[in-house]
Amino acid sequence: MRLHGLHIVAGLDSFAKQQTFHARNPADGELLSPGFREADAATVERAATLAAAVFPQFSETGPRQRRQLLNHIAVELERIGVQLCERGNQETGLPVPRLEGELGRTVKQLRMFAQLVGGGNEKLPVVETALPERQPLPRPDLRLTQIPIGPVAVFGAGNFPLAFSVAGGDTAAALAAGCPVIVKGHPAHPGTSELAGRAIVSALKKTGLPAEIFALVQGRGHEVGRLLVSHPLVKAVAFTGSLAGGRALFDLAGQRREPIPVFAEMGSVNPVFILPAALAKTSGALARRYADSLTLGVGQFCTNPGLLVARKGPQLDGFLAQVNAALGAMSPLPMLHIGIKDNYVAGLKTLAALPGVDLLFGSDQPSPGCLALPTLLVQPAADFLAARQAGEEVFGPSSLVVCCDDFAQMLEVAAALPGQLTATVHALDEEENQAGRLFRSLRLKAGRLILNQFPTGVEVCAAMHHGGPYPATTDSRFSSVGTTAIRRFLRPVCYQNFTAALLPDELKPEAGED
Amino acid sequence: MRLHGLHIVAGLDSFAKQQTFHARNPADGELLSPGFREADAATVERAATLAAAVFPQFSETGPRQRRQLLNHIAVELERIGVQLCERGNQETGLPVPRLEGELGRTVKQLRMFAQLVGGGNEKLPVVETALPERQPLPRPDLRLTQIPIGPVAVFGAGNFPLAFSVAGGDTAAALAAGCPVIVKGHPAHPGTSELAGRAIVSALKKTGLPAEIFALVQGRGHEVGRLLVSHPLVKAVAFTGSLAGGRALFDLAGQRREPIPVFAEMGSVNPVFILPAALAKTSGALARRYADSLTLGVGQFCTNPGLLVARKGPQLDGFLAQVNAALGAMSPLPMLHIGIKDNYVAGLKTLAALPGVDLLFGSDQPSPGCLALPTLLVQPAADFLAARQAGEEVFGPSSLVVCCDDFAQMLEVAAALPGQLTATVHALDEEENQAGRLFRSLRLKAGRLILNQFPTGVEVCAAMHHGGPYPATTDSRFSSVGTTAIRRFLRPVCYQNFTAALLPDELKPEAGED
Repeated sequence: MRLHGLHIVAGLDSFAKQQTFHARNPADGELLSPGFREADAATVERAATLAAAVFPQFSETGPRQRRQLLNHIAVELERIGVQLCERGNQETGLPVPRLEGELGRTVKQLRMFAQLVGGGNEKLPVVETALPERQPLPRPDLRLTQIPIGPVAVFGAGNFPLAFSVAGGDTAAALAAGCPVIVKGHPAHPGTSELAGRAIVSALKKTGLPAEIFALVQGRGHEVGRLLVSHPLVKAVAFTGSLAGGRALFDLAGQRREPIPVFAEMGSVNPVFILPAALAKTSGALARRYADSLTLGVGQFCTNPGLLVARKGPQLDGFLAQVNAALGAMSPLPMLHIGIKDNYVAGLKTLAALPGVDLLFGSDQPSPGCLALPTLLVQPAADFLAARQAGEEVFGPSSLVVCCDDFAQMLEVAAALPGQLTATVHALDEEENQAGRLFRSLRLKAGRLILNQFPTGVEVCAAMHHGGPYPATTDSRFSSVGTTAIRRFLRPVCYQNFTAALLPDELKPEAGED
Repeated sequence: MRLHGLHIVAGLDSFAKQQTFHARNPADGELLSPGFREADAATVERAATLAAAVFPQFSETGPRQRRQLLNHIAVELERIGVQLCERGNQETGLPVPRLEGELGRTVKQLRMFAQLVGGGNEKLPVVETALPERQPLPRPDLRLTQIPIGPVAVFGAGNFPLAFSVAGGDTAAALAAGCPVIVKGHPAHPGTSELAGRAIVSALKKTGLPAEIFALVQGRGHEVGRLLVSHPLVKAVAFTGSLAGGRALFDLAGQRREPIPVFAEMGSVNPVFILPAALAKTSGALARRYADSLTLGVGQFCTNPGLLVARKGPQLDGFLAQVNAALGAMSPLPMLHIGIKDNYVAGLKTLAALPGVDLLFGSDQPSPGCLALPTLLVQPAADFLAARQAGEEVFGPSSLVVCCDDFAQMLEVAAALPGQLTATVHALDEEENQAGRLFRSLRLKAGRLILNQFPTGVEVCAAMHHGGPYPATTDSRFSSVGTTAIRRFLRPVCYQNFTAALLPDELKPEAGED
């Protein structure tokens, strides 16, 4: 399949400007063909107008059609899997096996949402039948369901070129809800985006649904995203990326005449607390698992453990020596693109300059090109607390080890943390009481609490919550992973005193119901 | 029980400024005693600090304690019911029987939430047990529940001095969720607010819960509200009132370093479409019900039917003559306060000046004092559509009748409407097809769809949705009435790989579960 470098917006060709941009292979810095057209205001206008025009029709499709659509997208992605992973590897530097795994997750997400819309429970229907004899006033028949919110703008994430990009979890959730989707592709992997976008177009055709339900616009700058989020016909935004990026979109959306929700997942430092007995007894295994979690995907995960909190002393020293040894055995790998690498280097520099921070593993000198070395820094808890460090995320394979005098100080560090996607405690059975005290504090900070495991590896299922208080996300009540993610794109509607014929299927009286 | 005119903030007395304000009886304009202290920055600071300090403890209370608290508040309100309704009548001009009804609703709401927290389902728990043998990776044990979001600022509404005020639905939902509440009392009924606030204080004492869980601050200006919404320790806002007020709070909350959700219910025009056969066959009854709905509570309901859409012709003329007759038989009643009355008069003036608008019932001359006359205006649909009228709400007993040439034009009016709390269609069985076509459009605009009834009278139950797309509310995904209103103040937390002892009760493995 040849790449076209065009936007996927029904009937758009004449709108596309001639200005183009190229992806770059982070492993060798080479420009990749072809050039991709930069979207302009006319492109965004057309995509939004078409999405809004087709929305009423798409909002009325039954579960069978949406299920078919999602399953067809999965099949189409699998069909071009080899090409997707190859192009993904060229554009992101992520190894092909990792991309194959990510494709598996992407396809699983689509099928999970397909199953969900088959069941109908995602609409949380509630039926309260009429009480005509009630005093002082009768109760009318009231039935509650949920309908899609409208066209959704999805921003492809750089670190998940498949699972959080064009045909990723946000798109799957929005389509499952019945919302048309306009994706702004991530500029680092436009070819991967186009391939996934064309898979969706094929699936729409096979399902007999209008092409206008999906659009993909590409571009390097912030302007395309700004235009999308500001467009009056766009009704919600899903984003995974940096705090600065997510906040900018949130602010834009809030300033609209009609404000719209922005579900921005902006990451966090994902603190890992290790209690003394766990440190002492499981040190070797823990060190290897920690080093693995820290460097997984070159540290480019929202759930990367960027903060480790433990009691200082020989046990911690021994543990850190083992972490160092594990990190030392790893070779530097390329980050996704030079922008992320530059941010990583700059973030580490800022962190290293904070009071009391020492470099434990890594180098003062950045590696060449996109290559990134794992980095371990240490800081006394007193300094951490005094500086009131917000625990700003440094996106990449780095972690700050906060060394506490005692358990009370570990509690202080927990209490000082801002909102997080995850918070982890490692404890032996005998430390259950202390673990419980830490979690009492951490539960008010995080969206997911983890005992004796590591935060990387986000299971895609109904019990997952991938979210958390600000600055982890802009809306702590919603998840961007798992089936509850569909709730972002649904809103309730109550039907009062309706006849059966006019009720939506999921609210129609069952045989025998009055 | 004597009124104190003080804020209800634990241990606050020394902070209260000496500046005071008085309520005014809208029926005769007389000032009411006593004077109420104006809250200042120190009052708000103290209330927020105390609420945040007590939040962790309150967030951990079990369902039994919260159920007790809510039930005790209900009992305390009933105990002072006579005084509440009497003071409420003096401060709002609402008739005592209406306030007795509202008290009944308030008490019912509290008991409904008490029942809800007893059940535990409000946390929508999901359990997915571990799959240790799964390939390529095992699945950890994952359990999802919800926890309270933090201290909530509740703004008392002017039009519901009991049910949407100090001990109203927002407070009940927030307390049920486990969130401390700081109420900013509505300045038009400070005495009613103080009485309800003291009922909550008594209930907290009886339940053995800390007084800091609840606070009431009073004041006339916008500054107190601004300080509350901007306070870093406040985590959510509930508001019922005008578009300007709700939007101002929404903007403030969005500009914070940590943005917080604002659930502002800002009302709408609640369009009522009457199809020709319904108009012809049920004209008399419909006219009376419409006049009743329009003037209920002097039109001071968010669900007041402010827009009527029908086909022009002799049927409509006859119907409107009957509405006029019904309205003519009513005497003018006082609105809640002079501010609302002035806005009503100004809103009608703006509406009357729009192209093609004629006065059908009412007067060019405003009634004296707070008294308001019902008003009926008519406008050809062509003018309504050409002016792209947003259908701005005129809060009070008025309605604009939009006269259409045909059914197609009724559809056009439906499509042109902004977000609404409710949308109604009156149709005979033989008009089901047309009603369905209207609802296909109206469902994308409104939170509640009504067939052959009127929008006033909001049932408090699990199937209710009182919300809708902007500008009806700032967040269409949440309701401010009914048990789902609790979802505004909860956020999900996932527990991964936890031992039974460390899990919250609602997630603990049942006997026999692995």
